[in-house]
Amino acid sequence: RYGETESEDMVGVVTGLAWTEVGGEILTIESVMVPGKGGIKHTGKLGDVMQESVSAALSYVRSRAVMFGIKPTLFEKRDLHVHVPEGATPKDGPSAGVAMATSLISVMTGIPIRRDVAMTGEITLRGRVLAIGGLKEKLLAALRAGITTVFIPKDNEKDLVEIPEAVKKHLEIVAVSHVDQVIGRALVRPPEPIEWEEPEDVVATPASTRPVPMLPH
Amino acid sequence: RYGETESEDMVGVVTGLAWTEVGGEILTIESVMVPGKGGIKHTGKLGDVMQESVSAALSYVRSRAVMFGIKPTLFEKRDLHVHVPEGATPKDGPSAGVAMATSLISVMTGIPIRRDVAMTGEITLRGRVLAIGGLKEKLLAALRAGITTVFIPKDNEKDLVEIPEAVKKHLEIVAVSHVDQVIGRALVRPPEPIEWEEPEDVVATPASTRPVPMLPH
Amino acid sequence: RYGETESEDMVGVVTGLAWTEVGGEILTIESVMVPGKGGIKHTGKLGDVMQESVSAALSYVRSRAVMFGIKPTLFEKRDLHVHVPEGATPKDGPSAGVAMATSLISVMTGIPIRRDVAMTGEITLRGRVLAIGGLKEKLLAALRAGITTVFIPKDNEKDLVEIPEAVKKHLEIVAVSHVDQVIGRALVRPPEPIEWEEPEDVVATPASTRPVPMLPH
Amino acid sequence: RYGETESEDMVGVVTGLAWTEVGGEILTIESVMVPGKGGIKHTGKLGDVMQESVSAALSYVRSRAVMFGIKPTLFEKRDLHVHVPEGATPKDGPSAGVAMATSLISVMTGIPIRRDVAMTGEITLRGRVLAIGGLKEKLLAALRAGITTVFIPKDNEKDLVEIPEAVKKHLEIVAVSHVDQVIGRALVRPPEPIEWEEPEDVVATPASTRPVPMLPH
Amino acid sequence: RYGETESEDMVGVVTGLAWTEVGGEILTIESVMVPGKGGIKHTGKLGDVMQESVSAALSYVRSRAVMFGIKPTLFEKRDLHVHVPEGATPKDGPSAGVAMATSLISVMTGIPIRRDVAMTGEITLRGRVLAIGGLKEKLLAALRAGITTVFIPKDNEKDLVEIPEAVKKHLEIVAVSHVDQVIGRALVRPPEPIEWEEPEDVVATPASTRPVPMLPH
Amino acid sequence: RYGETESEDMVGVVTGLAWTEVGGEILTIESVMVPGKGGIKHTGKLGDVMQESVSAALSYVRSRAVMFGIKPTLFEKRDLHVHVPEGATPKDGPSAGVAMATSLISVMTGIPIRRDVAMTGEITLRGRVLAIGGLKEKLLAALRAGITTVFIPKDNEKDLVEIPEAVKKHLEIVAVSHVDQVIGRALVRPPEPIEWEEPEDVVATPASTRPVPMLPH
Ligand SMILES: [Ca+2]
Ligand SMILES: [Ca+2]
Ligand SMILES: [Ca+2]
Ligand SMILES: [Ca+2]
Ligand SMILES: [Ca+2]
Ligand SMILES: [Ca+2]
Ligand SMILES: [Ca+2]
Ligand SMILES: [Ca+2]
Ligand SMILES: [Ca+2]
Ligand SMILES: [Ca+2]
Ligand SMILES: [Ca+2]
Ligand SMILES: [Ca+2]
Repeated sequence: RYGETESEDMVGVVTGLAWTEVGGEILTIESVMVPGKGGIKHTGKLGDVMQESVSAALSYVRSRAVMFGIKPTLFEKRDLHVHVPEGATPKDGPSAGVAMATSLISVMTGIPIRRDVAMTGEITLRGRVLAIGGLKEKLLAALRAGITTVFIPKDNEKDLVEIPEAVKKHLEIVAVSHVDQVIGRALVRPPEPIEWEEPEDVVATPASTRPVPMLPH
Repeated sequence: RYGETESEDMVGVVTGLAWTEVGGEILTIESVMVPGKGGIKHTGKLGDVMQESVSAALSYVRSRAVMFGIKPTLFEKRDLHVHVPEGATPKDGPSAGVAMATSLISVMTGIPIRRDVAMTGEITLRGRVLAIGGLKEKLLAALRAGITTVFIPKDNEKDLVEIPEAVKKHLEIVAVSHVDQVIGRALVRPPEPIEWEEPEDVVATPASTRPVPMLPH
Repeated sequence: RYGETESEDMVGVVTGLAWTEVGGEILTIESVMVPGKGGIKHTGKLGDVMQESVSAALSYVRSRAVMFGIKPTLFEKRDLHVHVPEGATPKDGPSAGVAMATSLISVMTGIPIRRDVAMTGEITLRGRVLAIGGLKEKLLAALRAGITTVFIPKDNEKDLVEIPEAVKKHLEIVAVSHVDQVIGRALVRPPEPIEWEEPEDVVATPASTRPVPMLPH
Repeated sequence: RYGETESEDMVGVVTGLAWTEVGGEILTIESVMVPGKGGIKHTGKLGDVMQESVSAALSYVRSRAVMFGIKPTLFEKRDLHVHVPEGATPKDGPSAGVAMATSLISVMTGIPIRRDVAMTGEITLRGRVLAIGGLKEKLLAALRAGITTVFIPKDNEKDLVEIPEAVKKHLEIVAVSHVDQVIGRALVRPPEPIEWEEPEDVVATPASTRPVPMLPH
Repeated sequence: RYGETESEDMVGVVTGLAWTEVGGEILTIESVMVPGKGGIKHTGKLGDVMQESVSAALSYVRSRAVMFGIKPTLFEKRDLHVHVPEGATPKDGPSAGVAMATSLISVMTGIPIRRDVAMTGEITLRGRVLAIGGLKEKLLAALRAGITTVFIPKDNEKDLVEIPEAVKKHLEIVAVSHVDQVIGRALVRPPEPIEWEEPEDVVATPASTRPVPMLPH
Repeated sequence: RYGETESEDMVGVVTGLAWTEVGGEILTIESVMVPGKGGIKHTGKLGDVMQESVSAALSYVRSRAVMFGIKPTLFEKRDLHVHVPEGATPKDGPSAGVAMATSLISVMTGIPIRRDVAMTGEITLRGRVLAIGGLKEKLLAALRAGITTVFIPKDNEKDLVEIPEAVKKHLEIVAVSHVDQVIGRALVRPPEPIEWEEPEDVVATPASTRPVPMLPH
């Protein structure tokens, strides 16, 4: 209802973690969806690498849309806008990739994100989660901000030995190798896959062989 | 009627507050709407951050359009133009975000803005209002310009102790955490929400759960 | 008829006034209209501020089209081109805004501009006329060029005390606060408003309240 | 017929005159027209001012198309390409404007350009011809290249006193104030105007007054 | 199924080999395909040469689509995105061209790539494979990463004398002059050509002569 | 058939000649044609002048399409891609223009190019061939590469006196003033013109006069 602030609504709003010269910091990431034609905009003084991170996150979400319960045609009828306040502070780096993907999935499914979680991790086009820097500073910042659960890359698990016990006691630290492991827990409920039949004229050559497995990298 | 100046019409014209090396200053922001296809233009030598501010304000307004009584389809049939005179003076910073949103809502609803109000505050994609700098200088500028009511960010309330009593006596200072609190009072009448039914083919997966509340940040 | 020069035709051609290091100067501004899709081009080595000035002038004209007797749909079927000879000389600044608007209105209505008038003034998106610099030099240049009437910004009226009596005797100096005051006198006849009914599907929420007046700024 | 060189065809090929540090030089300008959507391309390392010159020439031709016997709709179905060999040599300046317009009119009407003429002059959007520099060097270059007739701007007539009598004896020098005076003589036959009725829905307000004449500038 | 990581799926994921100041390195290249209009995006801080490499690989694949069992119309209904993690590390050079082509063919046919192969080689628009630098370092990196088969350019075969016997014993090194020799072996099964009849209206002049052979370069 | 390399196919592949600080060099130019909308792409680190050369070559081919047996409508249904390997080596200059045109005509007609020919020469929009530099070095490079026939610009014929007799004995050197002289001999068979009737609505004014001849420049 008009006049009521949106403070209760966490759809599209996620807490990332940044690492700067002066320590770790909370990085709020917001997305909204408006009628459009499949475009994506970003604001908040994002550097080149963070811009590409938004792009990679979007392609991951789009290529796996049905798995998240998002109709593929929705992308053609909506524009997305990702914003990282505070607008005058330059931001860069790939480590917000997982948070970008989470924000986009939330806004496209309408499922809110838990406000007590934070996350850090580079994302690849296939949803793999890659290592980041500044783990200790980021965890401290999460703790200060009242976060209870932090998702970190599996490849950073080895850095946990350097983290003070006090921090590890108050934070649930979840190491993940794939972004889907985040989605399943950071949203207030897991997205449900939908059935989707590709229009016939665009189907590629029938693939009679099942894909062989790829071992962990 | 032709030949009659538009001086009585405040639709789309709002008073922002700028903070420069030489003190606070009034910053008029003007918007017009013309037939078009959803584009937005800005002029007045706006720097990168202020340009992104226009973009964030627009996405906020667009994503909450029905709440403001704006038909979502209107965006596809109109272009918007935001101008900040004086055209030769470079302007930058995120603190005009709330004023940008107010100007856009006014021009799209046709509801005029009260000419005795001024406002300052960064806006996020979700309409939250973030802290700004130079509060004292801005309030002094507002006073000099005959403003009676100034909207400031809730996060700047703590800076009010530094403001001279004389200033606080002559200005009604309203601290807000969300842009909707500004819209409700800065326009000559509050916008009225409309009913809007999304075309069926773009509706996302039915959301059976209600969004959980987000506590203040 | 082919072979006959266009020298008798003043449609779209207006005399602006520039202020450079070496004094005031006449600045001819030309516009033409060709079949197109609503685009606008500018040539003549215009700097960023002058380019934005063209853009602001166009949005003013477009948003008030019916008042000038221009069918709003004309914009979608025409391209405009604004040129400021001499092409090798860089030009900049906002003070040609009023002249830009006058040129565009002339070319779109087909009503010629009086060749004995000149004008200077920044324009805002709402048609307000803002102060400019170099008034004295500009008036002298106008006089040298045989101009009889010059439109200047109301906000520059205070500078008239510095203008030699000889200049003021030979020039009719008209101070204006709004561009419509120029249009009504600089064109050989005032444009006549047309009736225009907005297609129903784009009409915004009915506005039951009349806009409140805006006092002079 | 294939295999036969195009050397007999002067449609779109015109001789301009350049003025460089080392003297005057012949500048061939070529245009071709291909199926398209109204675009224009330029190649030959043209600087910003020369590019704008192409643009101004095109707008002049387009706005006066019927006068040259060119159907206005042709522009929407063709692309134009202006090239100035030699491709590795940077070229700039506004003085090829008249030649650009001549080349475009030739290629769009199919009327060849006389190969014994050369021309120099800035063009405005209204077809006026403005003064250029380096007249003497340009005339000498024309003479060396076997040119018999050179079109120069009326505003450069005063510079003819500095030109050696030997040059003036061998060249017919035609001073013009408008590009149409060039078109009428540089093409092997003058273009013939066509009748053209504007589709009704784009006609502006009926103009009951005839344009008043503009005196020479 | 949602929640299951994609780690078993090698469609579009291929192992390239990079050569940097500090030695050879594995370079994972990922592609995804989403509904679209024939666009291609790349992320991962790719330099100009690597970007052109993506473009050349795409044109090769597109011009030979039917040979790979890809319906030519698929390109008009899909967008492709090529990403090279890690996103903050700049990458450049043409030597990933063969890997780019392999990744694109895999994602467009749905045929996975063998995860025990790596490849290096510049690609031309005709699919020829050109020589690269750093062969020794690249082979060592492949070995360290557990790769068993490496495709190298035929033109680099001469460099194999410098490679330690131990390396050559553990790696199957396949020298190729054309990218099709890679496709046939690096994918888990060779793509099967499809029949495709060009719509009649775009067929060029009937070619009565068979192309003459081109000898190896 | 899949798996068979394209090495026998010379369609679109042509041998140009480059002149660098270290001597002459073979420059392979490749073009492919894919379904599209009339766009042209270039890769291979081409400098500005070489890019314009591609553009001029294309406009020449397009404006004379029917003469080469290419349906004008083909351009609207295809995209072209010109690539000059090796991708990491910057290339520039106008002297590959004739080779660009030859490559494009070959790929659009499907007629292969003789693999024992090489060519050098700037091209103009009308197909004229202009002089180039480094003739001696280029001829030596052609000889080393096993070329038997080299097309050079007529304007470079004068430089042949500096070429060693041994070179001239082993190379057939063909001096040309127009690109059509190259097309007729470098392709394995000359393209055959087609009949083409322009749709009536775009025909320009009837031209009652035949173009007058243009003498050689
Ligand atoms: Ca902060
Ligand atoms: Ca980072
Ligand atoms: Ca001021
Ligand atoms: Ca600020
Ligand atoms: Ca001047
Ligand atoms: Ca100025
Ligand atoms: Ca020359
Ligand atoms: Ca010049
Ligand atoms: Ca690494
Ligand atoms: Ca490399
Ligand atoms: Ca080489
Ligand atoms: Ca060269």
